[in-house]
Amino acid sequence: AETLDSLLEKKVKKLLHCGDGCPSTVTQTLSCTSVKAMGTLASCPAGMVATACSCGFACGSWNVQNENVCHCLCPVIDWTVARCCQLA
Amino acid sequence: AETLDSLLEKKVKKLLHCGDGCPSTVTQTLSCTSVKAMGTLASCPAGMVATACSCGFACGSWNVQNENVCHCLCPVIDWTVARCCQLA
Amino acid sequence: AETLDSLLEKKVKKLLHCGDGCPSTVTQTLSCTSVKAMGTLASCPAGMVATACSCGFACGSWNVQNENVCHCLCPVIDWTVARCCQLA
Repeated sequence: AETLDSLLEKKVKKLLHCGDGCPSTVTQTLSCTSVKAMGTLASCPAGMVATACSCGFACGSWNVQNENVCHCLCPVIDWTVARCCQLA
Repeated sequence: AETLDSLLEKKVKKLLHCGDGCPSTVTQTLSCTSVKAMGTLASCPAGMVATACSCGFACGSWNVQNENVCHCLCPVIDWTVARCCQLA
Repeated sequence: AETLDSLLEKKVKKLLHCGDGCPSTVTQTLSCTSVKAMGTLASCPAGMVATACSCGFACGSWNVQNENVCHCLCPVIDWTVARCCQLA
């Protein structure tokens, strides 16, 4: 039979749209990593967004394509780094 | 009359300080966009913070003013990009 | 005696793994600050991660060490800025 306790649990989880993942969402933190690639493009892993890009040859001109791909804009570039972050 | 169900709903929403926005806050994600402007300054939209700046003429020297304004520091700058993020 | 109200409160707090801090976690926002240091290294405060780095002498080549230390990579660097963010 359904107890008051299990009823409460179901209700809270439904309101918060969470299943077993309830607790983790409350203690979310910002987590970042770097992805380095040769050439002018570097892509973040799925689920992460690019917060910045770093470029070889001292270049500080870049843009971000599709939220998660770093593109270094100087004429000569040997490597590109994407700084990628997500909530975890 | 007040049902147990409506009582539960009110209680959860009060504890979490949320009204109809309850569900979205639990599944927060990091969302970023770029704002480009001519000159040495570029501002993020209201509610967003600058996580990085990109500057024309290969310049990698910049600072952030008031949490959300990118300022490129090299003597000659044609454009400035603010990388702007928020929780959504 | 235990009321339905106190029972509900206990249940919600247990499910969300929060005590008195319940409300603040629901309204998390992204908060960033900048840390400037002389030389090629700048460290974020404890609990923050580096989302980007800015370097003196127009240098746009950098990496991030241990999630929170900015390292400018050009041969000549006078100052380094770490852009540091956290959920608050």
